[in-house]
Amino acid sequence: MFETAELGHTIDKASYKAALPALREALLEAQFELHEHPNRAVIVLVNGVDGAGKGETVNLINEWMDPRLIDTHAFDFSYGLEAEHPPMWRFWRALPAKGRIGVLFGSWYSGPILDRVAGKVDDATLGATIDDILRLESMLVDEGVLLVKLWFHLSKKQQKTRLKELESDPRTRWRVGEQDWAHFKQYDAFRAVSEAVLLRTSTGYAPWLVIDGSDPQYRSLTAGNVVLEALKRCQQDSPPRLTAAPAPLLPPIDSLRVLDRLVLDQAMSKADYADALEQWQGRLNQLSRHAGMKHHAVVAVFEGNDAAGKGGAIRRVTQALDARVYHVVPIAAPTEEERAQPYMWRFWRQLPRRGKFAIFDRSWYGRVLVERIEGFAAESDWMRAYGEINDFERQMDEHGVIVVKFWLAIDADEQLRRFQQREATGFKRFKITEEDWRNRGKWDAYSEAVHDMVERTSTHHAPWVMVEANNKYYARIKILRSLCEAIEARLSR
Amino acid sequence: MFETAELGHTIDKASYKAALPALREALLEAQFELHEHPNRAVIVLVNGVDGAGKGETVNLINEWMDPRLIDTHAFDFSYGLEAEHPPMWRFWRALPAKGRIGVLFGSWYSGPILDRVAGKVDDATLGATIDDILRLESMLVDEGVLLVKLWFHLSKKQQKTRLKELESDPRTRWRVGEQDWAHFKQYDAFRAVSEAVLLRTSTGYAPWLVIDGSDPQYRSLTAGNVVLEALKRCQQDSPPRLTAAPAPLLPPIDSLRVLDRLVLDQAMSKADYADALEQWQGRLNQLSRHAGMKHHAVVAVFEGNDAAGKGGAIRRVTQALDARVYHVVPIAAPTEEERAQPYMWRFWRQLPRRGKFAIFDRSWYGRVLVERIEGFAAESDWMRAYGEINDFERQMDEHGVIVVKFWLAIDADEQLRRFQQREATGFKRFKITEEDWRNRGKWDAYSEAVHDMVERTSTHHAPWVMVEANNKYYARIKILRSLCEAIEARLSR
Repeated sequence: MFETAELGHTIDKASYKAALPALREALLEAQFELHEHPNRAVIVLVNGVDGAGKGETVNLINEWMDPRLIDTHAFDFSYGLEAEHPPMWRFWRALPAKGRIGVLFGSWYSGPILDRVAGKVDDATLGATIDDILRLESMLVDEGVLLVKLWFHLSKKQQKTRLKELESDPRTRWRVGEQDWAHFKQYDAFRAVSEAVLLRTSTGYAPWLVIDGSDPQYRSLTAGNVVLEALKRCQQDSPPRLTAAPAPLLPPIDSLRVLDRLVLDQAMSKADYADALEQWQGRLNQLSRHAGMKHHAVVAVFEGNDAAGKGGAIRRVTQALDARVYHVVPIAAPTEEERAQPYMWRFWRQLPRRGKFAIFDRSWYGRVLVERIEGFAAESDWMRAYGEINDFERQMDEHGVIVVKFWLAIDADEQLRRFQQREATGFKRFKITEEDWRNRGKWDAYSEAVHDMVERTSTHHAPWVMVEANNKYYARIKILRSLCEAIEARLSR
Repeated sequence: MFETAELGHTIDKASYKAALPALREALLEAQFELHEHPNRAVIVLVNGVDGAGKGETVNLINEWMDPRLIDTHAFDFSYGLEAEHPPMWRFWRALPAKGRIGVLFGSWYSGPILDRVAGKVDDATLGATIDDILRLESMLVDEGVLLVKLWFHLSKKQQKTRLKELESDPRTRWRVGEQDWAHFKQYDAFRAVSEAVLLRTSTGYAPWLVIDGSDPQYRSLTAGNVVLEALKRCQQDSPPRLTAAPAPLLPPIDSLRVLDRLVLDQAMSKADYADALEQWQGRLNQLSRHAGMKHHAVVAVFEGNDAAGKGGAIRRVTQALDARVYHVVPIAAPTEEERAQPYMWRFWRQLPRRGKFAIFDRSWYGRVLVERIEGFAAESDWMRAYGEINDFERQMDEHGVIVVKFWLAIDADEQLRRFQQREATGFKRFKITEEDWRNRGKWDAYSEAVHDMVERTSTHHAPWVMVEANNKYYARIKILRSLCEAIEARLSR
């Protein structure tokens, strides 16, 4: 893997200076063309051996191009707010919007490789992290991102020479610390782990490019050329589609769907409700202040038919919580900023830190519900969304986030009654729109989509709770109880 | 994942019988249309809970369609010849050719799931196996295969009832053995492991379909419909391309390539050669009879410039070996049978069993050499080939196969001299063709492709040995010595 970067590549200064003006002009031009592109972004990952010119290259990229259209981020180990979220959260935050270039120094590779070299994690843990990385990268490519994965290499001898050089010059002495020499001592282990990681993650759609880092002119010009070609490629291609469509999902031949098995009319009197509400809200409040909650967070997802009572149920939950502990995230059409990012981005940004509750009024399930039914998402996009959703929820679960998902189900008659009631009630009239009536016409398509959704995303770590909601009292109590039980189950694990 | 398959789906016998004739006719028709298709194949994976109708469904598929165009294979644990090869070998053997349907009973999922349930492997090993499976499946989809992954499900209660039913009927009593009840006792563990595996392997391009197995009519009709839709989809789509093209690979800007650093003229006299040949051939012969070789096999790959002396070198290797121990695999243009399979298929079928040597005269590297240069393979295909090749060689290495790869390098003058010599020598004239002269005209393109090949596929477990071959004596001895050393290193590990 690294042999070709040890051949001793060089470019003399004169050739370098001669090549530079044309390269810079082409880079700038290509950068502005990318900026006009509605569907593509470029991410440059900068990784490799210490002293091989990673930092210099990042600086040059910013110097040669317009830095206003570049987002540069450096990643070391997680700390502070980052450590409060699942490991991939900080990378989601750093993704460039469409039309922009992201430069990720260290990227999602440095931490796992260094942890393995230091013996902090074993091969199995590294393997699981690599899986997460592969899924992230294939999602990014599916979403139109062109990944440029640069690995700057030095041989052991070259690294030693380089560190000594830097140390001996008073202007650069500060750049070499104890940590650099400590890393150098582990050169062989670092090389072995890196080779294994690069092999497993060098895919056809996002290959690694290993660059000889020993000669500054050579490595800078090479990196510049690679970035230029990537920018040009963005203009040629339509966004790539990684995901081929498989055979289509078929509805059950007996037309029996998840929702059909629910007995939507459940009895609960107003008096019983009042008692139960007090009991379960009290319990939820206690749980939110439980000492164990400092290791956990709660994500509660509310989906359901129009007029099924999501809003009312959410209020019964929030009433039990201190306002500093939760936030409610209403999901409507994505903003311009959100449309310029991969689909799951706007949900990642709303994840609660430890000890907090995030309550989603509609959610990432829009992809496999409304977007599927209305044709806003292509089949291959919503088909891959099931996997991306499971992956997202699994990452939350592994980080200690308790994920509870509610589907509030009412029948068509009950919905009609509620629509009419809303139209008749002055202050509720704003709650009923043309769109609600249109959606109602697609009742069957929604039932099918809900069935597929439950089949593909109800998991051990994030199960769907189906809520019979013709009776609002019953529904609210079931929700409060299920939420309390899910939290208790996790706290007592 | 399994909730929707526990709703109690049923279809009455009358509806079943009514639907059957049209389904069977449509299946047959779609099957014949697939058979005409030059680029698509369908693989149906049949997995799930014991007693859920897996066997019956496989029989029905064969009964409803033309069994001459279906390849059915059942997979239990590896044994015999299968255990002599890397784990994935037996699945490669079972792949259907283009235009055909493969039905894989148990498939690549049964073994890993059951091994995990029985505690024979840990989560890390299962995870690594799942990675191999994901790579295999994405390669298959890239190669035009449509995967239908069927999981037949029963709840614990249903499985118990089903096993008792089978036991109480004298005609089916034989189908229930001790093993079935032993599996039943592990139902909960089986379900948990299965859910985890299904979640990780349900991708957008090859999703799982969970089928309620409790009602024979329902499950049969459902499976039939799914297969029909898959066959229809094959007609609509061109073969999917999973792999999006990244930024193109660029040649080194200083034009310094791997081959440029080699000193191709190396001295060795005829007398020294004779001595060394005797010594190293003797050593190789001893190694081939070493007791440790029963756990290993050797794959030696010979690539190089035209007229670089591959044939002569191979003969010096085989002279040292017993004819029962090795076979030489000359790789020319693929046969018709081979063209109907994924690219790597024809190499998988040539893998040696334990204790044996396979010597490849040219190899799977054709994909990233001649096919790249001549444009026989699309860029996205040869770009993903680097990963597929590394994956293939890693699987060999993990299984104990010693992989040694030789690139025999001569310079352009030496090649010209040899070409002219061949043309002048009667019995060697067949060795030089128009194509050789044409290839010679692409010297530079080959140097570039060799450089990229070494960069991307020279790995710790399967390194390239670059052989300076202007002097044939020197080259042959270096090859024999490198081969011996590679075997010794592995035997003494």
